Amino acid sequence: MTEKVLASWKEGSARQAILDFLQATTTPGAAFVDVADRIATFDNDGTLWVEQPLPPQFDFVFRRWEEEVKADPSLAAQQPYKALIDRDREFFEGLAAQDPQVVATLLEGFARSWAGTTPEEFDAQVREWTRTVKHPTLGVPYVELVYRPMLELFDLLHASGFRVFVCSGGGRDFMRVLAEETWGIHKENVIGSAAAYTYADGKLVRSRTLLGSLDLGSGKPEHIFAQTGRLPVLAGGNADVDIEMLQSARFALLVQHDDEEREFSYTKGAEASLTKAEALGWTVVSMKNDWATVF
Amino acid sequence: MTEKVLASWKEGSARQAILDFLQATTTPGAAFVDVADRIATFDNDGTLWVEQPLPPQFDFVFRRWEEEVKADPSLAAQQPYKALIDRDREFFEGLAAQDPQVVATLLEGFARSWAGTTPEEFDAQVREWTRTVKHPTLGVPYVELVYRPMLELFDLLHASGFRVFVCSGGGRDFMRVLAEETWGIHKENVIGSAAAYTYADGKLVRSRTLLGSLDLGSGKPEHIFAQTGRLPVLAGGNADVDIEMLQSARFALLVQHDDEEREFSYTKGAEASLTKAEALGWTVVSMKNDWATVF
Repeated sequence: MTEKVLASWKEGSARQAILDFLQATTTPGAAFVDVADRIATFDNDGTLWVEQPLPPQFDFVFRRWEEEVKADPSLAAQQPYKALIDRDREFFEGLAAQDPQVVATLLEGFARSWAGTTPEEFDAQVREWTRTVKHPTLGVPYVELVYRPMLELFDLLHASGFRVFVCSGGGRDFMRVLAEETWGIHKENVIGSAAAYTYADGKLVRSRTLLGSLDLGSGKPEHIFAQTGRLPVLAGGNADVDIEMLQSARFALLVQHDDEEREFSYTKGAEASLTKAEALGWTVVSMKNDWATVF
Repeated sequence: MTEKVLASWKEGSARQAILDFLQATTTPGAAFVDVADRIATFDNDGTLWVEQPLPPQFDFVFRRWEEEVKADPSLAAQQPYKALIDRDREFFEGLAAQDPQVVATLLEGFARSWAGTTPEEFDAQVREWTRTVKHPTLGVPYVELVYRPMLELFDLLHASGFRVFVCSGGGRDFMRVLAEETWGIHKENVIGSAAAYTYADGKLVRSRTLLGSLDLGSGKPEHIFAQTGRLPVLAGGNADVDIEMLQSARFALLVQHDDEEREFSYTKGAEASLTKAEALGWTVVSMKNDWATVF
């Protein structure tokens, strides 16, 4: 490569830690990692793109549910529609906390809206959303709110013989629409929470049931193993629901949202992971101090 | 490539059909396929290696169950041990037919033997088996009974920009041990029936439950979609349990076991697929007439 690697990263300890780790794992020696084992995994919301004021997929889901309430106002009295209309943030945060009742209610809501759809139909809905919807305060389509430094890290990892996977609590099929164009990786490198599909009469159709665990917390290493047969050598995340994935990796990056000028500044949902980072020597990436360019 | 492609294939209609299809899909024109969509999937038992007198994984499983009966003779009276001791072929063929009772009994047997094991433990058991066990009549380790023409087809597909996946009713984790060394593909390119694993205390442990459907019949396109987000452009199989996968592909190869001299000659379990092949214009590969070399 003639271009500078990690060009949007400022010189500093985070950038250097990444370069040192990749140097060590790809050079004969004690820390060398076989090419076959070179798996890197990254959370999506808040790690690869903006997750404030809400993870973008919620925007997609909520628009659908608002349409459904418009078509049938009686839905407004029942969950998850009620939480949406009441702007009940606590309810939706119950998903990250894996509150069983919230999870069940949301899965029931997803099933109501999307069970019976084909991959092509769902894909078209997501594409329409990416094409037409803009972030409420930053004013550009969500796909323009992917962090450039992380895409450069993908490039460097690929050049170092790693296979890069995105592994998010969000919907696998939602994210796969973004895989090739936005991240430059194939759909099969995207891992996430997913409905089971059934194949009949030559057609795949989405069912009402979840396939395996939610891809959050301990579900992350479970999904990564199911998809790849391995645990990651390098992993990147930004939240408490990423802790198990980061612990399962040899090298962990934790993105810290501390840049209220260019992005957002918050630690909510990441308190435990920031504590772990210090205790376990994870590399904390300060968006403010480590990134010369964010988008 | 300077070496001849598909060198172990005889000149003939099967070889030519493959070359023509790959030419058409990779050259601008009506049949062109985007690189992102170039997925090829292959069944394992009977498509990539010998499945007579039994799919090799049964040999692995049966040896384990024989040891268990030796340690606890009372097991001999209960299924699936009884079927094993009685050499009850019909019972095990119920798996391919997805007889619900046989499936449940076998899954219970697998759970009894392997629930609670880590990936490293299971991997070591399979490696020991591949290293020490020989095919009962051909007298060589099973990994030497992989069909060379199919590995050459993998090479050609890779050279044509395809990602190659193995998709078998057999155990995903069993096959993944073979992936890199035997097939030259990564573990994440191996799809199969699989137990769910749980992650706790920094460790993955195999559970008692199946993750999703059995990877047989309609389960094959379901598993392929779950793993890759696509259906295959090209698929290869040899049995009735491959029909749905072959139908989901644009180009289907059906391996016909008609070479009793170099391999085995049988149509049992493939009757319906041979009829479909004729009706739908699939490319039938005669092991006897289309392959100059088998192993």
